[in-house]
Amino acid sequence: MLIIMRENVSQDCIDKVVQFIEARGFQSHVSKGELHTVIGAVGSKIIDPRNIELLDGVQEVIKISSGYKLSSRIFKPEDTIIEVNGVKFGGGNVGLIAGPCTIESYEQLDKTAEQLKKSNVKIMRGGAFKPRTSPYAFQGLGEEGLKMFRSVADNHGMAITSEIMESSQLDMFEKYVDIFQIGARNMQNYNLLKDMGKATKPIILKRGLSATFEEWLLSAEYILSSGNPNVILCERGIRTFEKYTRNTLDLSAIPVVKKLSHLPIITDPSHGTGLRDKVAPMSRASVAAGCDGLLIEVHYDADNAICDGAQSLYPDEYNALYNDLKQIAPVVHKTIL
Amino acid sequence: MLIIMRENVSQDCIDKVVQFIEARGFQSHVSKGELHTVIGAVGSKIIDPRNIELLDGVQEVIKISSGYKLSSRIFKPEDTIIEVNGVKFGGGNVGLIAGPCTIESYEQLDKTAEQLKKSNVKIMRGGAFKPRTSPYAFQGLGEEGLKMFRSVADNHGMAITSEIMESSQLDMFEKYVDIFQIGARNMQNYNLLKDMGKATKPIILKRGLSATFEEWLLSAEYILSSGNPNVILCERGIRTFEKYTRNTLDLSAIPVVKKLSHLPIITDPSHGTGLRDKVAPMSRASVAAGCDGLLIEVHYDADNAICDGAQSLYPDEYNALYNDLKQIAPVVHKTIL
Amino acid sequence: MLIIMRENVSQDCIDKVVQFIEARGFQSHVSKGELHTVIGAVGSKIIDPRNIELLDGVQEVIKISSGYKLSSRIFKPEDTIIEVNGVKFGGGNVGLIAGPCTIESYEQLDKTAEQLKKSNVKIMRGGAFKPRTSPYAFQGLGEEGLKMFRSVADNHGMAITSEIMESSQLDMFEKYVDIFQIGARNMQNYNLLKDMGKATKPIILKRGLSATFEEWLLSAEYILSSGNPNVILCERGIRTFEKYTRNTLDLSAIPVVKKLSHLPIITDPSHGTGLRDKVAPMSRASVAAGCDGLLIEVHYDADNAICDGAQSLYPDEYNALYNDLKQIAPVVHKTIL
Amino acid sequence: MLIIMRENVSQDCIDKVVQFIEARGFQSHVSKGELHTVIGAVGSKIIDPRNIELLDGVQEVIKISSGYKLSSRIFKPEDTIIEVNGVKFGGGNVGLIAGPCTIESYEQLDKTAEQLKKSNVKIMRGGAFKPRTSPYAFQGLGEEGLKMFRSVADNHGMAITSEIMESSQLDMFEKYVDIFQIGARNMQNYNLLKDMGKATKPIILKRGLSATFEEWLLSAEYILSSGNPNVILCERGIRTFEKYTRNTLDLSAIPVVKKLSHLPIITDPSHGTGLRDKVAPMSRASVAAGCDGLLIEVHYDADNAICDGAQSLYPDEYNALYNDLKQIAPVVHKTIL
Repeated sequence: MLIIMRENVSQDCIDKVVQFIEARGFQSHVSKGELHTVIGAVGSKIIDPRNIELLDGVQEVIKISSGYKLSSRIFKPEDTIIEVNGVKFGGGNVGLIAGPCTIESYEQLDKTAEQLKKSNVKIMRGGAFKPRTSPYAFQGLGEEGLKMFRSVADNHGMAITSEIMESSQLDMFEKYVDIFQIGARNMQNYNLLKDMGKATKPIILKRGLSATFEEWLLSAEYILSSGNPNVILCERGIRTFEKYTRNTLDLSAIPVVKKLSHLPIITDPSHGTGLRDKVAPMSRASVAAGCDGLLIEVHYDADNAICDGAQSLYPDEYNALYNDLKQIAPVVHKTIL
Repeated sequence: MLIIMRENVSQDCIDKVVQFIEARGFQSHVSKGELHTVIGAVGSKIIDPRNIELLDGVQEVIKISSGYKLSSRIFKPEDTIIEVNGVKFGGGNVGLIAGPCTIESYEQLDKTAEQLKKSNVKIMRGGAFKPRTSPYAFQGLGEEGLKMFRSVADNHGMAITSEIMESSQLDMFEKYVDIFQIGARNMQNYNLLKDMGKATKPIILKRGLSATFEEWLLSAEYILSSGNPNVILCERGIRTFEKYTRNTLDLSAIPVVKKLSHLPIITDPSHGTGLRDKVAPMSRASVAAGCDGLLIEVHYDADNAICDGAQSLYPDEYNALYNDLKQIAPVVHKTIL
Repeated sequence: MLIIMRENVSQDCIDKVVQFIEARGFQSHVSKGELHTVIGAVGSKIIDPRNIELLDGVQEVIKISSGYKLSSRIFKPEDTIIEVNGVKFGGGNVGLIAGPCTIESYEQLDKTAEQLKKSNVKIMRGGAFKPRTSPYAFQGLGEEGLKMFRSVADNHGMAITSEIMESSQLDMFEKYVDIFQIGARNMQNYNLLKDMGKATKPIILKRGLSATFEEWLLSAEYILSSGNPNVILCERGIRTFEKYTRNTLDLSAIPVVKKLSHLPIITDPSHGTGLRDKVAPMSRASVAAGCDGLLIEVHYDADNAICDGAQSLYPDEYNALYNDLKQIAPVVHKTIL
Repeated sequence: MLIIMRENVSQDCIDKVVQFIEARGFQSHVSKGELHTVIGAVGSKIIDPRNIELLDGVQEVIKISSGYKLSSRIFKPEDTIIEVNGVKFGGGNVGLIAGPCTIESYEQLDKTAEQLKKSNVKIMRGGAFKPRTSPYAFQGLGEEGLKMFRSVADNHGMAITSEIMESSQLDMFEKYVDIFQIGARNMQNYNLLKDMGKATKPIILKRGLSATFEEWLLSAEYILSSGNPNVILCERGIRTFEKYTRNTLDLSAIPVVKKLSHLPIITDPSHGTGLRDKVAPMSRASVAAGCDGLLIEVHYDADNAICDGAQSLYPDEYNALYNDLKQIAPVVHKTIL
């Protein structure tokens, strides 16, 4: 921790800061510049920097250490590669996941899977428990939906992913899904994150609507430090003043997170834009920016989807996009199955 | 729902939209203006407006009904008044809650309570389970802390409030607290919200860091529609580009929410600013803007607080503030105990 | 400037950073902590910290000095007090300015002035050149409007303020107005700011829609360093994700800016909320938070105003608000004329 | 304009709204739904919808027409193609512009141009007047710089673009540049925009830091309606809560603006990210998302650049990026020279 004193403060102010931090178990190193004195506080204790900022003569306090360790690239320099049903995320691989927003019926899943197989999809998405803004909106088919999804997946040789809403669903989800999803609204539901350490499957952790990169990596740290190293980060759009798109998909997350962390990062252009005709350009852009995968909503009958049909591709549109992505990936030295 | 067509669209486009909505159970009313044709869609079905926006010739779709009902002032025109330990929130009353961020020890609670009593505080706050950004930060004393808090409160004739983190803690909390708190990060933890319908005590529902007023009221609606009508809304700052303050306390929430809803609205200037010397001005401003209460962090030894001491007042500072608030409240026709 | 190196970097990395900064005219002070080495760079040269952040082994670079000097409270500890027509801003005084958004006609100004005098208003606002989002919207009466405004003001013993749009209007404005206004959209129009140094009258500098406190004070610094010390800062709402209010009036600006700067700070609750019934609560809140003045839109016939009538008070409403403010000001040790 | 009344309002409320709008020159069409009555107001007058929202019983007022016409794709369905020095923007062409942030010296420009020619660059960027947040930062070489830039450009067969700061510079700029730039901070400097109608060269209009798509197109409308049809829109990052990147480059602007407008849209990944190693991924992503061009900072000696060197590529890095872009463009049916 570095404590920057205001210009030309008195020795008395400096002494009091030194006393304050030493009384709390830190060693101090005072270094006087032309205008500013800087006090380094060394130690392993945790102290809220704002407590020091309140002392007389203190201009600013700077924390040196970032809070995440296990998710940091300094801790683990090489890419984490996560493989599910032969699909790899990270380490030069772009993994694709496609499927409907919401599980509606066996027929819907079956028809969509049938189509997606033609585009080489091996992991399907589909929601059984839906976090809805309104209590009066459709809340999903629940376990019945998951059961259906598992059965369709098995028939088509697919792996599946679905969103878990609370810790008490963990055992039930373990029976059905191959990848857990933590939604954006639960990114800081710390009790849920801690419990995901017990999950035996990888976890897609979506970025919260207004989460910083550091907070996101700290949420990943909750899972990693609880025992599950298989976290896939998913950028799905942040909230800004712009209302034309549902959210603002922040593609700079890709190169930034790739530098800070070894974890794979994918994007969700469906939620990130909320508009079907924006999904393909933003998917292409994601791959060009170096993402490790994509999560795309596809529905065999999108116009009649119960939920988010407007941001879902038709299977034909997905197939055209898939062909584009296969051409862009090699330019950035990536492989798409 | 109103569907606004682009300028000079063909009759064919209009017909297709009419067909589309009628096939989904709506009645249609076409009305042609000079430039724009507007199609009204009447019915009780729920349909995603974006599905219609994708049809040819459609410019925009407008939802007429807001999603919240029970929390709306149209549904219940008169103020909801919530009373706890003689302190009222709403209906011309400003209720005050004060206490430390985190429960640290019996002594800390006892000494703080001792002091707060002199300023007529009758409800204390204190966290036993802390939602921390980092998994390595102090996570709270847990049930042990709540037990301690209850005991101190009983000795001093105080009611208490504390933050609940997940549904499985509901029964335990019922034993100790007089008011539940749902934190900002859990504002859209819908499973938790639904379960709070079973709580027999009032609930303080904090606004999410990037939640709109409508989303906040819809989260309240989850609780109300699950059976608990006693929700106190709490503005605690939103996230903006400004980093000098921890959050940006949005005081316009007060007059806006008072108009839209009958529920009491309070503010939390401690989290809203993150800086001790900003708490008093923003508390005074909250009362002047018409709030129904305040949630303020106070610690008898703030500089040595484990958590958020930098935004906690000392009891003397609280007392001075209390005297100011007593003078401002009558100007806006409000009463402070 | 402090350069924080990553954990356990090589001596070679440290040497290269030292070389880099010394080659650019800085002295270096290396101090090794347990994990991190910190290099202090002392000197008066300006260097983009990001250039150093790109060097191997560098974790973060921290600028110690804030860029503004003349507008800083360190430079001038006592409040700047600006007086116009007997009305004072700063130093325990709350100055009030009221009047229509836009100058429409002699009659409109005269009738509004007539009414405002009853509430002791001594400075009127009114726009002659309007910055409008659309090129097709009414752009103001121009110099003709200013002439009209001056004449009405003289008849009623009022001072006036109006918004200047570009440097070439400076001489013309000098003839008519007593206070210049720089609008939010021009807060970073640096050529205009520099030219305002030549103005002989005080300047109200509105905060930009997404300007940080530091950027705002740096814009004031442009004016101060060009020779005009009389700047009144005006918070008028920032842009957030919330659309219910036109902007989000950030009242924390008041205590924050009062601490950082000696310049007076006022608020504009009319633009800050965009809604007439929110103006009074946010005005009261501004005074309670410690502002040095208010800029309020009032129109004798608000419903028929050409521009922004919806956020303008009727004179009666203004008078009621004035009476409230007179009661709140003494609580925060302020005086309203 | 559509006026949506609250549920079950009285006939009296409806009548008063009808009266109000008819008195202001509108025709009214009342249509009663099950819960809500909707009143259509038809006419060419301009009225602030908030004036109507204040009337009793009104829930919401919706404007039907967007304000921009000349810049709208409805007005002109086919792409505008702007050609400068053989480089095309729009209509399937991706035009590239590269060069230093700031003009520093003849040698700097000459050496950079020398290198850029190898990558087929035909338009160079370079700032002579710099909008700097601090009045104490380097403000550019001014006209001397432009003269230098023109001379270097002529020697190398290049066209050039530079930022204009105020209307009074128009004639001077006409002598030197081939494309004008309007910076983000001046996007709503309406006097400057209007005067750009007189410019005989194309204009790059950058998006403001917190401007919506609609505001941006309305700013373009100022230029178009003043007589200059050659506007190139440039996304350069918006301000969000995230501070790791200098701004958040909003790539969804590309497909959104392409749909709303016929004008070419380019991106500026240098300012959009502020970090050299993020420029290449975001440039590739821009092309994959369908942009019509790129504006990239390149400096032959980036580490020693006076300004923004940290976000400038070295010529070799630019060349590698150029090769990548040449491979991505055909996938989205675009041509790069």
